[in-house]
Amino acid sequence: MTRIFKELTPVGEALGLFMPRLHRMTSEIIQVTKSTGRVLAEDLLSPMDIPPFHRAAFDGYAVRSLDTFGATATNPVVLRVVGQLRPGDEEDMGISAGEAVEIATGAYLPEGADAVVPLEYSRRSGEHVEIIRQIPPGANVDRRGSDVSKGQLILKRGTRIGPFEMLLMASLNLTEVGVFRKPVVSIISTGNELVELGSSLGKGQIVNSNRYALESLISELASPRFVGIARDDEEELASMLREGMKGGDLVVTIAGTSVGERDLVPRVVESLGGEIVVHGLSIMPGKPTLLAEVDGVPLVGLPGSPVAAMVAAIEVLLPSIARLAGLEGSLQWPRVRAVLDRRIASRPGIRHYVRVSLRREEDGEIVATPVRITGSGIISSLTKADGFVVVPEDVEGYESGSEVEVLIYRRWLKL
Amino acid sequence: MTRIFKELTPVGEALGLFMPRLHRMTSEIIQVTKSTGRVLAEDLLSPMDIPPFHRAAFDGYAVRSLDTFGATATNPVVLRVVGQLRPGDEEDMGISAGEAVEIATGAYLPEGADAVVPLEYSRRSGEHVEIIRQIPPGANVDRRGSDVSKGQLILKRGTRIGPFEMLLMASLNLTEVGVFRKPVVSIISTGNELVELGSSLGKGQIVNSNRYALESLISELASPRFVGIARDDEEELASMLREGMKGGDLVVTIAGTSVGERDLVPRVVESLGGEIVVHGLSIMPGKPTLLAEVDGVPLVGLPGSPVAAMVAAIEVLLPSIARLAGLEGSLQWPRVRAVLDRRIASRPGIRHYVRVSLRREEDGEIVATPVRITGSGIISSLTKADGFVVVPEDVEGYESGSEVEVLIYRRWLKL
Repeated sequence: MTRIFKELTPVGEALGLFMPRLHRMTSEIIQVTKSTGRVLAEDLLSPMDIPPFHRAAFDGYAVRSLDTFGATATNPVVLRVVGQLRPGDEEDMGISAGEAVEIATGAYLPEGADAVVPLEYSRRSGEHVEIIRQIPPGANVDRRGSDVSKGQLILKRGTRIGPFEMLLMASLNLTEVGVFRKPVVSIISTGNELVELGSSLGKGQIVNSNRYALESLISELASPRFVGIARDDEEELASMLREGMKGGDLVVTIAGTSVGERDLVPRVVESLGGEIVVHGLSIMPGKPTLLAEVDGVPLVGLPGSPVAAMVAAIEVLLPSIARLAGLEGSLQWPRVRAVLDRRIASRPGIRHYVRVSLRREEDGEIVATPVRITGSGIISSLTKADGFVVVPEDVEGYESGSEVEVLIYRRWLKL
Repeated sequence: MTRIFKELTPVGEALGLFMPRLHRMTSEIIQVTKSTGRVLAEDLLSPMDIPPFHRAAFDGYAVRSLDTFGATATNPVVLRVVGQLRPGDEEDMGISAGEAVEIATGAYLPEGADAVVPLEYSRRSGEHVEIIRQIPPGANVDRRGSDVSKGQLILKRGTRIGPFEMLLMASLNLTEVGVFRKPVVSIISTGNELVELGSSLGKGQIVNSNRYALESLISELASPRFVGIARDDEEELASMLREGMKGGDLVVTIAGTSVGERDLVPRVVESLGGEIVVHGLSIMPGKPTLLAEVDGVPLVGLPGSPVAAMVAAIEVLLPSIARLAGLEGSLQWPRVRAVLDRRIASRPGIRHYVRVSLRREEDGEIVATPVRITGSGIISSLTKADGFVVVPEDVEGYESGSEVEVLIYRRWLKL
């Protein structure tokens, strides 16, 4: 009577099958100042040189390096100071043989000069300055274009824009940039027992909390669009799926993805002419995950058990959305090496995600303790845990005392 | 003539001196659904039990466990099926001795029942069911409150709200939550050479790009408020500082923090009666960083050189803002272990942040190459690099072939 999955697919293989069905979004032009977190839709070529002019890299005197030839402390070269330049000075200035300009770091190098003598190799006296060391051409000058030259490829398509990319684009005086549109992800919850947050809870009812967790998780990359809660009814689910597909670049369903009688999602996907790409992942929790395509729209069916839903969302949904969003590369979670203080058991062939809490011992060692779990789908285990020990398919658990790597699915951690 | 810092302070020590001057923000009540990224201002106690009712953990039959005493396949116990319960069913139902209710995972346990017999240990025939195995009390039931019990401390003050915290709060049907206000950070750029993004660049002028990078960096934790560009003039800088202090919980200045004649920030801070807490960090780049307090408002003076500004902002400014924001714990950056393919030199006593690019060899080994830097403040080095090798104060560089840890100051990485 117990229904089981015929076959479980490893996450990597599942993504390999699903990815070719995910197509990058089209692009749009937005303001650079509002582009944090967005993904470049074009290779960016520099429209200008950085620095945009030869620039003093030190405080000192801008000179013709030839004039300093043979200068020493006992036999200094004397130059006439014909002006002063500070950062931001715009007037044209130049020097001839025997002349120098007092210059501050960041100022443009005057016409005729090819080097800067740092202050410590100079002795000023009135309108003249003694140079006490010979300086080669180009010394203490940031040459125009030495950082970025005009036409150079500076950022690649698929790069996510963060502070560093912002710094570069702003330095190049770019005001607009082409980015991929944010994918719209339609979310459909399923289950008669669900009510929305803030409703009064009747007997047997629970809050549709997976929806909010999911919205929080994907909002970094996509615009979540909640379609509704489908009751355990094929007609209703089919109609919500159709609505989700209409406005969404990807549809996520929550619950009803297993192989039981009341697991309507796979059945309804097929009744709509959809193709099931993967059903059942070799991960725990997260096994009853569905990857499908209906009418050209990719669909990810997440398990209903909250912890399983979160693990599957992180491992399968996020990379799928990243692909739509045009991102190259993968999300890097912080990782911490720690010593297990208890044994972790696991079943071979299944990748286990074991929630652990971390603490730092007095000797600095970080210790990971598996969070005690007494029932299925224990939500509080996610917030009690600091991270996950991932036990690979080909490993049969870890002994107490083993060094393990802990994946931290958050950005801030007290340790 | 060369002015130098009298003393350089390690980052940890500098933060130790500065932190006590940073006071947590006051709190505000916001909607849970909009709380992603915010920081809890209160210890959260659960207003209810999760699960909110005894719940079937398996598909099967809800029974009185005593009724199954002695049941075997050859000597089954026969119970009368008096009803059916599915998740979300609200009607009251109960059983007496000799009775069972057909139940689906997630449904509430009927009155009188204390266990669930899984389907595989049952044989249904019409209105009756044969139970073929003895079941202990509580078996296959998620007891009310077994995940979270009413009144339990579920989330601590200072926790940043992410998907997992959202899941928990929504499951508890919490609609509002007390969080710390977002700190307002006033940003003041300094330097005659600066113009805003999109302006036409005159000779000797550059874009105020540090501002935009900084806004991008801190927007995760704070609301940036740009005050303006202060020309190299004490009066103007003083007036902008006063304006920044008025509307800001923290003031950041960019450039003018070194010990030269034109480094006005420390001087103006003192002229306003401010106290300089730290001037000069033992990091490279990032040395000319200033930590001060003016009229009760903390001030972070960042170096003007873009790479130095970014390093100092990450190492000193972000933790300071996190403190204001009420966050407990520290920002965890992804780290990657890699093998250096070139030597890294460093000066003892200074913590070096060396930009490196990463590549994965065919054998899976990750190799880090220091990014070649030919001038000071090379902006493109930040985007060419994938991360930073941090050489601690007490280490004199790393030989080629050493294994090092690379800090990834971004979330997505192609590797």
